[in-house]
Formats: sequence, structure tokens, C-alpha cells
Amino acid sequence: MELFNVVTREEAWARLEPYILPVNRAQVIAVEEALGRVAAKDVTSLENVPSFPRSAMDGYAVRAEDTFGSSESLPSCLTVVGEVRMGAQADIEVGPGQAALIHTGGMMAKQADAVVMVENARIVDTETIEVVRAVARGENVLRVGEDVKEGDIVIAAGSVVRPPSIGVMLAAGITRIEVFDRVRVALISTGDELVPPDTRPGPGQIRNTNAYSLAGLAVEAGADPVRMGIVKDQREHLLATCQRAMQEADIVAVTAGSSVSTRDLTADVIQELGSPGVLVHGVSIRPGKPVILACIEGVPFFGLPGNPSSCMITFSLFVTPAIQKRGGYDRLPGWHHLQAKLTRNVPSVSGREDYVTVKLIEKDGEVWAEPLFAKSNFLSAMREANGVARIPLNRGGLSEGEDAFVRLL
Amino acid sequence: MELFNVVTREEAWARLEPYILPVNRAQVIAVEEALGRVAAKDVTSLENVPSFPRSAMDGYAVRAEDTFGSSESLPSCLTVVGEVRMGAQADIEVGPGQAALIHTGGMMAKQADAVVMVENARIVDTETIEVVRAVARGENVLRVGEDVKEGDIVIAAGSVVRPPSIGVMLAAGITRIEVFDRVRVALISTGDELVPPDTRPGPGQIRNTNAYSLAGLAVEAGADPVRMGIVKDQREHLLATCQRAMQEADIVAVTAGSSVSTRDLTADVIQELGSPGVLVHGVSIRPGKPVILACIEGVPFFGLPGNPSSCMITFSLFVTPAIQKRGGYDRLPGWHHLQAKLTRNVPSVSGREDYVTVKLIEKDGEVWAEPLFAKSNFLSAMREANGVARIPLNRGGLSEGEDAFVRLL
Repeated sequence: MELFNVVTREEAWARLEPYILPVNRAQVIAVEEALGRVAAKDVTSLENVPSFPRSAMDGYAVRAEDTFGSSESLPSCLTVVGEVRMGAQADIEVGPGQAALIHTGGMMAKQADAVVMVENARIVDTETIEVVRAVARGENVLRVGEDVKEGDIVIAAGSVVRPPSIGVMLAAGITRIEVFDRVRVALISTGDELVPPDTRPGPGQIRNTNAYSLAGLAVEAGADPVRMGIVKDQREHLLATCQRAMQEADIVAVTAGSSVSTRDLTADVIQELGSPGVLVHGVSIRPGKPVILACIEGVPFFGLPGNPSSCMITFSLFVTPAIQKRGGYDRLPGWHHLQAKLTRNVPSVSGREDYVTVKLIEKDGEVWAEPLFAKSNFLSAMREANGVARIPLNRGGLSEGEDAFVRLL
Repeated sequence: MELFNVVTREEAWARLEPYILPVNRAQVIAVEEALGRVAAKDVTSLENVPSFPRSAMDGYAVRAEDTFGSSESLPSCLTVVGEVRMGAQADIEVGPGQAALIHTGGMMAKQADAVVMVENARIVDTETIEVVRAVARGENVLRVGEDVKEGDIVIAAGSVVRPPSIGVMLAAGITRIEVFDRVRVALISTGDELVPPDTRPGPGQIRNTNAYSLAGLAVEAGADPVRMGIVKDQREHLLATCQRAMQEADIVAVTAGSSVSTRDLTADVIQELGSPGVLVHGVSIRPGKPVILACIEGVPFFGLPGNPSSCMITFSLFVTPAIQKRGGYDRLPGWHHLQAKLTRNVPSVSGREDYVTVKLIEKDGEVWAEPLFAKSNFLSAMREANGVARIPLNRGGLSEGEDAFVRLL
């Protein structure tokens, strides 16, 4: 029955990956709106940060040489000539034998070249301190541009904008950023048995739910889903819908009816659309074996199984990284992968990579994955699922307490 | 200098947590728009799924008794009377000694009570198959309601709507869901040295960036940030802004100037706002020791250090879980925590929990955390940071290759 040649997941991705190129559309948006977007160009600092020499500690601005040799038993005595105001030009001058009270972030007082931490200064009276530890020149002081220099790259092309990078860009004077357009993912559901979710199914019919779960995964991967509706298992209708999808989107995913005839239809239609056509038909994973990976004139195409959990798992394995690469990420972020200990044994067979839906839980400060065993076409097993654990290719399963890789669902 | 009593992170959270109650506002929205929202009530299925007896496999619908005793050497011979059409009432009747071709998801033919998998049927001619393995009654058939029964809970109150639950709800006939309103988090930045990000700082001034990084963390935690702007270090102004924030938001976070005087001002003002007031002032973590946890008439209040990485770390440790609890989550999701091996030794001291910003990378199929050592007030260390690793309380650090807990930043 199975006319396709099964390859490993790595081999499957290696065949498709070279065909996936970043979208060549970008837009300039406010940095504060850029969370999760991908920088289209290197962004360089417009300024030195800090722009003035700044205290890194609460303490006293001093001339370092006045503290040389100071210790608990032999402190240096300095005269406090004032307090540096925050947010203002330092108007205090520190002469020999003098010190000025300064707060973290305060502009260094004139003539001062180091800061004695407050913990190392004993207050003798309102005008006098004893320094019990020497400071070197420049100690506890941030020099102009020491943090970020004018022209330094603050976020590299292909990086995802995360909360810390928003802070760094704004600090460096950057308020607008050029980001790649969000990738558009067309979702086509095929199957004579499907009706829209708001329609009560008749005998033999079921609701089209895959397009909606997959839309959620697409959003979480940073893409805009484009639902193309339901297509009956008719060659001409599927072909026309795929052609329209290629016009409207950057990636196309077809969830097939799960019968063999429908799978063949999807592969045939994709092959007819253009070149290079179907690259992979069949991957040694369970569930998800009949998956199709293809590319048509720059648009990655995926044929996913129709079974609800199989289509989510194969989407996560292949479409999510395709979204990321097409979206301009220079490297695939590792952080949507996590390791978790299995709460029980999961059997498998050698030569096949198994994926098991799991519920992630925290136990004694550790992350555990509880396998939700059930026939893979059971929705009920998915009610609590928030991840899918990988049982590696050439292991006969994993044991309770062993670490498994988990992708979030 | 430190008038506050330092407690552990666990103790700090244990003092605040009982005061955090879910927002009592909810709204009904479309299931397809509910990704990431929290169910306000248990949602029960309106229907049986499947609503008709359905084949779980590609194969042949048969009467099980006709296959009893079948084996490779002694197959049963059955007459194929037709093919069950997908998406339609089963109009074929399977009599004794008969079989009907059926696809996964197809409605069971009349009188048939089991499905022989296609792998266990040999095609003799267009009208005849040989069954080489017996099937029991009900084998490879999903009974009405076997997956989800009418009245079953498909998503429990307090659960986050994830892509799989969207699929399950739609399959069960649910197209609208009541979800808690998103939590509103007011962000107040204090400091005489702060200017808005689009203003060029004068001598001694820096841009207010914290409100924008924290807004990003708030969005990722599922909240709506409300930026309240910059407040000078003046008691009356801060008090008035906090009062306004309490009206407009469900949680208030004040990022303080990092000087001791400013920290005291924040604590004093919070204490004056109402009861129970300040619950924690000082936690045995680094960075983040001077953090303030408080609650004023049902509104959790946080005083966070002004240093960019310290305020993100303390936000992630305390404000993120507060958003989740206030947002109605019945349990804190474990999956924003992950374990990663450290790429090098990280020293620490006993009695203090250290947090180190890290860059997560994937190496040989494992997640590694590369510590980005730098003075904690260096922005440049944050450019590549996408996580923060925890060095536990009573360990003198962690070694290269050891697992650390990492929160995403």
C-alpha cells in the first residue's frame, strides 16, 4: 500500500531546508511594538551608553589616590563636600582629600575618578567619612560607552526581539526597527467528511477542527494563519485552492483526510503545481509517517495527516521550523524545546521516532512530563496535553525518570 | 543601611500568594480567538464524539464472528459488497460472510461490528478478500461518545486555552467560551534621572527603558500592560500615581531608582496606600535583593529594583506568577520553566539564590545555557539573553554540565 520511501526526520528536514528562504518583505515599526518580530537588518547604537561617566554603586565619589593604602585599621579620612543630584549635571568638584555622596547611576563628580562603596565608608560626622578599603582609578565607575558604544550592534539581523532587547534598543536611542513581515501560513483542510465547526455534523460527518488548532500553533510560531476552508476530495478543487494559497501565503499546509486515497491525491496535486515538487513522502516517525514535505517555486508545501494529534505533531516538527526560517530567523531558537523527566515508561521500537503527547507538570522544583496514552485519534487525550515528548530513533523506549525532549503544543 | 528583613524567595511568595485573587471579570469570546486565555468556567461537551460509530482504521467493516479463528494459514474468505463513502450515511449493509471497504473516520456499515485493518486483509479479486487475523467485536471501531461524552468536561475552569484544546472544544460543538479578562498590569517608573525613550538624555539623565522591557514580559505572561509614565522621586507625585494605577489596573509594579533613598520612598508610599501593605521587603536573591512585595486592598503591588536586568528578573520571579494567579489560572503552568545544562561553572555563595542571565543554545540535541557574565547593570549582557538560570540557595554554585532551571526572558 505504501508507495513512498520513508526517511528519518533529520533526513526529511535536510531535504526541505535548503529550499526555504526568508520572505523578502520588511516593514519599519516602533520598537515597543516589536516583541516577537525578527530584525531584518543589524541595528547599531546611535549613541554611547552611558553618555556620561556614571557611578555603578551607591557610595562616595573620590580621587582614587586619596584611598591608596586604606584598610580597616588604617582608614583614610575624607571631607564630604556634598551630594551628587540624580538626573542632573554634576556640579560638585571633588578636590584632594574630598568626597561626594553619589547614588547608583549618578554622574561622576568633577575631578573624581572612583567610587567607594557605601559599605566601605564609615560615617564619622555629617562632613567626614573614613574609607576602609582602597579603590583603584575607575573602580565602580562606568566610562562613556563602556556598556554600548556608538556603532555597536545592539540586535543582529535575524534575531527575535525579546523583552531584554527592547530595553537595550531604547537605551541606545533606537525607537524604530525594520522587521521582516510575519509569515503567512495557508491552512487547507481536505476531506469529504468535514463540515465547518459551527455546523452540526450529519451522519458520517465531523467538524473541521485541525485548521483551528494549527492556526494556534502558527500564531505561537510567529506567523499569521490564513484559513482557506474545506476542500472536497476532488483533484480540480484541491489544485485550484492550492494555487490560490500560493498567491496569498508564504507557506501552505494541507491537512489530508487520513485515508490512503486522499493522501495520494494531496501528493499528486502538489507534484503538479510546479518544481521541485514533492521532496519527502513518508518519515519514520509515529504518529505522522505519511507526512509530505514539498516546495513549489519558493513556497514550502506540507501534506499533514488528518488525525488531530498527528497533524499538530507534524506541524510542530516541520512547519514551525519552516515558519522560523521563512520568517528570517538566522538560527532556530532552542528555547521552544525543553527537557523533562518522564513520569512513566514509554515503550517504542528501534528505527522509529515516537512522539507521545504529554502534560507538563512541576514536581519538587523539576519539570516532569506525564504521557497521555491513548489512541492517537482520541481527542480526549489532547484535552490536557501541552507538549509532545520525543522517544529517540534507536532506543527501545524511555524509562520512568529519564529525560525526554518536549516541544510545547 | 538595610532596615528590611531578608527572607527566601519561597517565603516571600508564600507571604504574598494568599492575597492574590482572580479578577472577577469575564467575557464570552469565539473559541478560535481564545488562544492563551483562561477558561472562567468548566466547559462541557454539548455532544457525543464521535456522534456515529466510526472506523479507527483503513480496512474492511465486517461481522467479527465471520473472522473468528482466522490466521495466515487458515484465512476467512469474505465477499466485498462495496465501499463506505466518507462524510455520508452508511448505506451499505454487511451480511454474514460479507465485508465493506472503509476508511479511517468512515461511518460503520450497517450490521458490521468490527474493522479488519487493511494490513490483515489479502485481496483475492475485486469482490473477495482473505482475512488473516481475527478481530473481536468492537475492534478498530470508535463507539458513539467513546472519545468525548455529552456532558464531559472538555476544558476545566482555570485552564489556559492551548492549540489542542481549541481543537477539542470545536470538535465537541463549542464555538464560544467564557474567559477571564486579561489582567492589567500598571508599570510606574520612578527616578529623577529618567527621560522618555524618544528624548535625548541630558547630562546625568538616562532613558526609561524598564517600563518597555517589563511590558514585553507582561504580554508574554498573558497580561495587558498599562504604562503610567515617569514619576520623579517625590512622595506626593508617587502616591497620586499609585492611587491612579490601583483604579486602572489589577497589579501595580513600581521600578524604583536604585538608590537606597528611592527604595525607602517606594516602600513608604505603598505602606501608606492601604492594607495589608508591605508584606516583604528584601529577598535573599541576587540580583533583586531590595524587592518589595505588597498588597493593597486586593491589588498586588511590587517594588522592583531600577537596574534593567534586576527588574526583569524580579518581574519574572514574582510578577509573572502573580499575573497568572490573578488571571485565574488554577495552577501555575510549569512549562515556562526549563532545564538546561550550563556551558561553564557559575560560582555562588550559600544562603543566597543567584540568577544569571543566559543565552539558550541547542548543542547535539540538548539545550545548554551559556551564562552571560557581566556587571548586572550592563545592558550589553542582555543583548543576547533569552533566559535567566537559577543557582540554588544552598549550593556554592553549579558546575559546567550541571542542569540549571531557566526561566525565559
